[in-house]
Amino acid sequence: MTRAATLAEIAQEAGVSAPTVSKVLNGRADVAPATRERVEELLQRHGYRRRGGRQVSPLLELVFHQLESAWAMEVIRGVENAVREEGLSIVLSESAGRLSPGQSWMDGVLARRPTGVVLVLSDLDRALGEQLTSRNIPFVVLDPAGDPGRGIPAVGTTNWDGGLAATRHLLDLGHRRIGLIGGPARMMCSRARADGYRAALDMAGIPYASELVKEGDFQHESGRRLGMELLGLADRPTAVFAGNDLQAFGLYEAARELGLRIPEDLSVVGFDDLPPARWVGPPLTTVRQPLTEMAEVATRLVIDLARGVQPGTVRVDLATTLVERGSTAPPRRG
Amino acid sequence: MTRAATLAEIAQEAGVSAPTVSKVLNGRADVAPATRERVEELLQRHGYRRRGGRQVSPLLELVFHQLESAWAMEVIRGVENAVREEGLSIVLSESAGRLSPGQSWMDGVLARRPTGVVLVLSDLDRALGEQLTSRNIPFVVLDPAGDPGRGIPAVGTTNWDGGLAATRHLLDLGHRRIGLIGGPARMMCSRARADGYRAALDMAGIPYASELVKEGDFQHESGRRLGMELLGLADRPTAVFAGNDLQAFGLYEAARELGLRIPEDLSVVGFDDLPPARWVGPPLTTVRQPLTEMAEVATRLVIDLARGVQPGTVRVDLATTLVERGSTAPPRRG
Repeated sequence: MTRAATLAEIAQEAGVSAPTVSKVLNGRADVAPATRERVEELLQRHGYRRRGGRQVSPLLELVFHQLESAWAMEVIRGVENAVREEGLSIVLSESAGRLSPGQSWMDGVLARRPTGVVLVLSDLDRALGEQLTSRNIPFVVLDPAGDPGRGIPAVGTTNWDGGLAATRHLLDLGHRRIGLIGGPARMMCSRARADGYRAALDMAGIPYASELVKEGDFQHESGRRLGMELLGLADRPTAVFAGNDLQAFGLYEAARELGLRIPEDLSVVGFDDLPPARWVGPPLTTVRQPLTEMAEVATRLVIDLARGVQPGTVRVDLATTLVERGSTAPPRRG
Repeated sequence: MTRAATLAEIAQEAGVSAPTVSKVLNGRADVAPATRERVEELLQRHGYRRRGGRQVSPLLELVFHQLESAWAMEVIRGVENAVREEGLSIVLSESAGRLSPGQSWMDGVLARRPTGVVLVLSDLDRALGEQLTSRNIPFVVLDPAGDPGRGIPAVGTTNWDGGLAATRHLLDLGHRRIGLIGGPARMMCSRARADGYRAALDMAGIPYASELVKEGDFQHESGRRLGMELLGLADRPTAVFAGNDLQAFGLYEAARELGLRIPEDLSVVGFDDLPPARWVGPPLTTVRQPLTEMAEVATRLVIDLARGVQPGTVRVDLATTLVERGSTAPPRRG
């Protein structure tokens, strides 16, 4: 039978005093880096958890991997909606470009004693999760990208269903030659969307054509470049599921350069439903990912955890919905 | 000769103890609302300023009037760039929908003891500025919209020059019948842009035609609606300066509905250069407002003020630049 180590036992094993372990736990600066590292390692190895209540500030930490992301604003809005009701303020950080939320960020968090942390990350650093857990700081991963690991509280969306719905919509319109510009294969959300695309084709009895499937990086430019490749094929697709909205906008540009009209010559479906989807010409048919609602749910979940409320499930996927606009139509006969 | 009141004198005049005045200054919750209001009023009337240094946290407060604004992300990015170098974290708030940053926000600020405050507001509440001043909390207004008042540190952009450059670009291409969809007349930035438009026409010897000038609200829908009006004129304009990018996107939709091609049948110039300006079809010619740089400058200014560095000037306007893309061309002869 194992038993979690006490602070005194960790101090003894690390060869330091108990107050030194306490300093590491509280993110104090006056600890030598090597000592800090040794103590952190032991805290994690022994699954140390602070007992009892902790003093918290009315702050909620919101950490983005990258603020440049086109959907960061939707997420911020959702978090703001949820914290407003609770009288909490948001502390905003970005982890890209620094060591993925590293020790200096963690020291700041420990000094601020936030109510909880919402992480908007494609990959959760295991050590980071363990550090937060050992301090009793609740956290939730807002994770449109993938699977953060078993037991980690996370809010996502139904990417596979969305890919299926996008492709079925094109099949229902009569398209048979349907291309895919997917996102990076290392991201779970890209794989799920692509699998939904493939499942829809399979159920419709249409063989998978690898020359119609491209892997982009979710940015505008890869949509344009891979769009040029797809539309340059001798037997070009009559419709493309573009993987996300930015790639769809890039595909619009490729079509424009080649003199192809949307939706007359090419149908396009995006994924995300960012505000610009309504502004492009024609307005984009896309799979709506409810980012604002996802951020609200993640924030309420972390506030519940901070209150000691144990949720029924720690993994919530909110449903996608197909939003039909002007970029899809039946294929032209000919 | 006047002399600033001391804390003791304010306490006496308010009929409370000095510790009570101190509580109000520090944003403590245990003060009756009526007492707080009376003390605040006296602090402001006497121009009370706290002496000496103050303890500050490594936090920078960033307050938006409204986070929905399409350019909030650009601003957040600039602030993040500037605070990163300084090891500060951002506390993000939104004032819309609450009493314009009201007492509960101010109490939070006083409890957090931030290094400084960047306000992204079209109108600065005078009482708010005075409350921050009395606590020695430096603040800067990031103010693309107008004129925050004499002596208030503010960073803006050259709206008049931008309106002039947009209109001159259209004149240089050969347009003579040029419409304007301006922003709300109550906002200084709208007036400045419209005056730049008018000055360019005047210098080119073209009479101002009031039927070609519309007032929108800077949203997509008003661009579409007023665009329909302008393009429905018997002698419709061959070019329109759309006031901002969102209105330009709405104007694109109006042109599409009427079967007019951009730029062949209609040239369009926006203002802002938000990311979607590159994604619409055709990519939008627009006046770039350097929001990210403006936010960086505002943040560095507030950090300087926190360090006691008195800047040479407290009003900085960063230059706009015209970005030529695909939405402008010479008018068709006919």
